Amino acid sequence: MPITVVGSIAYDTVKTPFGERQRMLGGAAVHFALAASFFDDVRVVGPVGEDFGEEQLEVMRARGVDVSDVERVSGGRTFFWQGEYGWDLNSRETIDTQLGVFEGFSPKLSESSRASDVLFLANIQPDLQLDVRGQLPDARFVALDSMNLWIDIARDSLVRAIEQCDCVILNDAELRQLTGKPNLVSAAREVLSWSPSEGGRGPRVVVAKQGEYGAALVTREGFFALPAYPLETVIDPTGAGDTFAGGLVGYIAAHPDEELSDELLRRAMAHATVLASFNVEEFGTERMQRLTGSEIAARIHELHAMTQFSGAPLALRG
Amino acid sequence: MPITVVGSIAYDTVKTPFGERQRMLGGAAVHFALAASFFDDVRVVGPVGEDFGEEQLEVMRARGVDVSDVERVSGGRTFFWQGEYGWDLNSRETIDTQLGVFEGFSPKLSESSRASDVLFLANIQPDLQLDVRGQLPDARFVALDSMNLWIDIARDSLVRAIEQCDCVILNDAELRQLTGKPNLVSAAREVLSWSPSEGGRGPRVVVAKQGEYGAALVTREGFFALPAYPLETVIDPTGAGDTFAGGLVGYIAAHPDEELSDELLRRAMAHATVLASFNVEEFGTERMQRLTGSEIAARIHELHAMTQFSGAPLALRG
Repeated sequence: MPITVVGSIAYDTVKTPFGERQRMLGGAAVHFALAASFFDDVRVVGPVGEDFGEEQLEVMRARGVDVSDVERVSGGRTFFWQGEYGWDLNSRETIDTQLGVFEGFSPKLSESSRASDVLFLANIQPDLQLDVRGQLPDARFVALDSMNLWIDIARDSLVRAIEQCDCVILNDAELRQLTGKPNLVSAAREVLSWSPSEGGRGPRVVVAKQGEYGAALVTREGFFALPAYPLETVIDPTGAGDTFAGGLVGYIAAHPDEELSDELLRRAMAHATVLASFNVEEFGTERMQRLTGSEIAARIHELHAMTQFSGAPLALRG
Repeated sequence: MPITVVGSIAYDTVKTPFGERQRMLGGAAVHFALAASFFDDVRVVGPVGEDFGEEQLEVMRARGVDVSDVERVSGGRTFFWQGEYGWDLNSRETIDTQLGVFEGFSPKLSESSRASDVLFLANIQPDLQLDVRGQLPDARFVALDSMNLWIDIARDSLVRAIEQCDCVILNDAELRQLTGKPNLVSAAREVLSWSPSEGGRGPRVVVAKQGEYGAALVTREGFFALPAYPLETVIDPTGAGDTFAGGLVGYIAAHPDEELSDELLRRAMAHATVLASFNVEEFGTERMQRLTGSEIAARIHELHAMTQFSGAPLALRG
């Protein structure tokens, strides 16, 4: 089923202990789209400025991504983010953010983008997420990402947006902040208890991203957790979360005839984990641009092997 | 195979967001012993003061732990630790530490403690760990824990102690600090490359404890990671790491006829994870004192179910 993603398309300037890049292609919608493109048709909705290059669009087109709803704002500048990572890549400092064309962005979806059955609301202002959600009222599966900023300054809107989604994908610290519950399971259960005041189903899947530790899945049915795929070389974590989301949502989109069971979601989590592991191996989108399906399949196989243990019974004392 | 553990026997005063306890039974050797007692015979070596109660020794005896090498130092005071945890239990502040009888402690092992085939060197000064290690030259499996303090002030001794062990069990931050390598896999590989200058085998198992995120296992053979067992109620994390070690080392001790394969180690990791999950459900040793083998087995079964995913193949695009 085709996927529509609404979110940022950006230029990123990134410095990590392993090097730096100036104004490389980035943005949540881009990272998401490249990952999801391994599974299904993807349509990207978001604004760019006059400074945005044709070769950047070509990166997405080369993976079959439909960029006809990428809106080029005349006289505008593309969203810009500059950040620097600490020695263990677990901390990062934002040096500069220039909203550019994102200031005053109002998502306009073409008929074909509105016809998608699957929608990913990348991290943008929650009222915009609600607006886009309203433009795809019949979408079969809608997932949402957000960030600490919106929990701080627009929590009510964010909660309303979450109530309209099937799946929430957040960093575990954000999930704690959003709910005020320090315990991950309790925080996830709290989100699963939300539902629209006007009636409707409310979220049924919560995914907590845990960075280098992996990710956890909480549904009404159960709990699942996967470690990150272990890497000796991590070059640039930028976009890992959106790549993860692209793997997760893409996998679900590619299985339109399956119920949204925990069994399906676990396979989706594994693909999300593996996609994210490739993304961080090089700067920006560099690794994803030449990734192949067989590389993904091989790493799924390895991840599977790395997480198995035998439950052989043992006579315990006491 | 009988297990000898050398380490602290303590009184802990602990405050968490869920309550507090004054001078309850604690210490690394105690937490380790209670967990390991589900698997095999355990002998505890460590000093206590005149203030140490008979009922505290009885807690260990009730689980079949041999406390005849617990040395009561006349005129001495039992090791005392006081700490307070933050709202999400991930940060803790040490309010007070009183070494008491641990100051000038020189481990004296009886013949039966020296006859154990399995040895756990809990977190004590690394020269003492080396000394004890030398008293069990033929032990089949020796594991060691340590802490940031010894990496700071006695790193050379610690490295020498590690070189004499089979298995190192550290928090992941300590593993990074010890090796100066921010990447977990690289840090573990570094430790696995160490070997005694006088010849010998060196460590072959590195376990990185990751708190609420679980734990990872690195051997020359491979990588394995397990999430923590998810709990909605965590009351007191004190002793979780030592309880984990008790489950891991205990499980290995209980399988004397098996090679130290990754397969065995993974099962040991699962038992370690489950034991630790019980420990944190109540203050100090409260939960462990009434834990049963069937409760452990049930949670192993659940943990197994929570970490499974199907590797069903999927035709990927590109």
